[in-house]
Amino acid sequence: MELAYEDILCNLYLSFSLNSAGFYSQSTMSSASYEKEDCLGWAARDVSGVLSPYKFSRRTVGRDDVSLKITHCGICHADLVWTRNINGDSKYPLVPGHEITGIVKEVGSNVHRFKVGDPVAVGTYVDTCRDCEYCQNDLEQHCANGYVFTFNGIDRDGTITKGGYSSHMVVHERYCFRIPDGYPLASAAPLLCAGISVYAPMIRYKMNQPGISLGVIGLGGLGHMAVKFGKAFGLKVTVFSTSISKREEALHHLGADKFVISSDQEQMAALAKSFDFIIDTAAGDRPFDPYLSLLKTAGVLVVVSTPSEVRGSALPLLLEMRTIAGSVVGGTKSIQEMLNFCAAHKIYPDIEVIPIQYANEAMERLIMKDVKYRFVIDVENSLK
Amino acid sequence: MELAYEDILCNLYLSFSLNSAGFYSQSTMSSASYEKEDCLGWAARDVSGVLSPYKFSRRTVGRDDVSLKITHCGICHADLVWTRNINGDSKYPLVPGHEITGIVKEVGSNVHRFKVGDPVAVGTYVDTCRDCEYCQNDLEQHCANGYVFTFNGIDRDGTITKGGYSSHMVVHERYCFRIPDGYPLASAAPLLCAGISVYAPMIRYKMNQPGISLGVIGLGGLGHMAVKFGKAFGLKVTVFSTSISKREEALHHLGADKFVISSDQEQMAALAKSFDFIIDTAAGDRPFDPYLSLLKTAGVLVVVSTPSEVRGSALPLLLEMRTIAGSVVGGTKSIQEMLNFCAAHKIYPDIEVIPIQYANEAMERLIMKDVKYRFVIDVENSLK
Repeated sequence: MELAYEDILCNLYLSFSLNSAGFYSQSTMSSASYEKEDCLGWAARDVSGVLSPYKFSRRTVGRDDVSLKITHCGICHADLVWTRNINGDSKYPLVPGHEITGIVKEVGSNVHRFKVGDPVAVGTYVDTCRDCEYCQNDLEQHCANGYVFTFNGIDRDGTITKGGYSSHMVVHERYCFRIPDGYPLASAAPLLCAGISVYAPMIRYKMNQPGISLGVIGLGGLGHMAVKFGKAFGLKVTVFSTSISKREEALHHLGADKFVISSDQEQMAALAKSFDFIIDTAAGDRPFDPYLSLLKTAGVLVVVSTPSEVRGSALPLLLEMRTIAGSVVGGTKSIQEMLNFCAAHKIYPDIEVIPIQYANEAMERLIMKDVKYRFVIDVENSLK
Repeated sequence: MELAYEDILCNLYLSFSLNSAGFYSQSTMSSASYEKEDCLGWAARDVSGVLSPYKFSRRTVGRDDVSLKITHCGICHADLVWTRNINGDSKYPLVPGHEITGIVKEVGSNVHRFKVGDPVAVGTYVDTCRDCEYCQNDLEQHCANGYVFTFNGIDRDGTITKGGYSSHMVVHERYCFRIPDGYPLASAAPLLCAGISVYAPMIRYKMNQPGISLGVIGLGGLGHMAVKFGKAFGLKVTVFSTSISKREEALHHLGADKFVISSDQEQMAALAKSFDFIIDTAAGDRPFDPYLSLLKTAGVLVVVSTPSEVRGSALPLLLEMRTIAGSVVGGTKSIQEMLNFCAAHKIYPDIEVIPIQYANEAMERLIMKDVKYRFVIDVENSLK
């Protein structure tokens, strides 16, 4: 199968994570008790990736755990890749989903950050060692001892994690986030992967300084969020796209200041040395030189997409002290900060809410890039 | 001619500068008066690059100028490239040299930072606009309006600048640096290009934190200074080289902690994810992947050499939040800071002092990489 996914970074991130085996060897696995098969989900059973109803168990709530009734789950390209075993490591039955929102229905005795009824979210990972320098510095996604991915991962007790295409979930409170009151749970879902993938590097590289100029390459799930964050930060935002069809959307719907067809050499040349930052969210390989030359001195090109390689002439990098940097999702503190920021600034991902029964069709549309910009499953009202 | 230069960045930097024409149009050129032909230099007259005695004029000392009697000048690869017109823009007669040290012999009425008798230095540029954001932020090498290179550049008055293979020089005080008392003028010379090329990015990227691990690719003029600075900063320094012949030098003479032959895959694999920083000073093209994978999470690879391109797999960059950054020489504040640091920590470039009559032979040896690690011309005692 030829996939035309636009923001598959998290897929590769997962692949890397799972291949690196994580930190839970059999000897260190802790025990957990399990409920009866009271969790209803939709699972893929084989490489066809076709999703269908599936009953399974979640662990009982431990002292540090939060149990949430899932209301919504975004559809990320990672879901597509693992349901179809593109990376060869899928463990069936496989319940995908790592852009999860819901309502707290039970908390462990040691949980103080959440109470029953709180709107909460879970993202791309559900455990890390909590001890290494990365865990201690808000970079859990880089946990030195590996991390447990939200689905298809090996959990602390040796079981395979199951994602958000399901009725409820039990997670250590550290990996659970408070959705600010009033923020729609459906809109919050895509923030947990698409949102944080661009928010985290934008903050890390100080792209949140009003008046500076930001270029956004690609206008998909990640790109459209980069535009929204950029405008909220007060930036001059230019969207680079290969498709003129995105122009109207970029300028009038998303509020970008400028739209440039990246193959238009004249337009590109006119923008030489004019950007403080460029964030690359586009699928596939592209020449980096045209973008590097658009950066000002000391400008930064952050790559959050998945080209097979990063390749550019050395001189534009050297002579102008430019930087190419990679980034993948974000740490727990950043995720909470992003949720708060989105609520405070009324930033909402553009979503198409669907019933879970539409999930298989949605996957096909995802392959065709036929979505603006994220499918979100209405789990609460359709998973029965 | 096939050149095997090892640190030609400044050459390309110059080329870029000169091609970008600078900020002095005929209409804005200021007038300056000139002395009689009282300056003795050695100049190349044609593409043979052969240097021979040449008399010319320096401008008279303006109110903001410093005039220095030149005692020493380092031989940089830039000298070789421009004396032989490798870049096609050499203006003959051409007096090379931009690693210049000497003694102040006259100062203008407005000069307060220097007095007659002070030991001073001049580096790769002798003027910039002094007004743009870069000039105002210690990044004169990135002056938005161009800069005037120390030789073969177009000066503010329209004349062609002439470098340090000469008896004296007149320069605006901003581009003149105080050599701390007691620091040998011969040793100081290479700091002005080779030294600052590695010192500036090491400071910018905070490589001066004791205990962190630094990799240095290549052991030439720039590389040997990176090792010296690294040890002075208290770092664990590993030298990567293609040549086992550099091992003894690296470990026992320069004090590196480790020496690795970069083609030894086993040794390289054992160092995965172990470096905070790597500084690339080696000549020519090389695969970047083997080095990227040696960086820790959030590690930085700074390129100060001149590969034709920077090319690596995207995943090692993205998944570990790594960065590839370029750098070229440094601003005036950094240069003074480096000189002070070298004096305080007794850091001296390894040099071979030669009379100017040996300059042509030195150029041939430079091509053969037959120097440890910088030729310095004893101008004071040989140029007569």
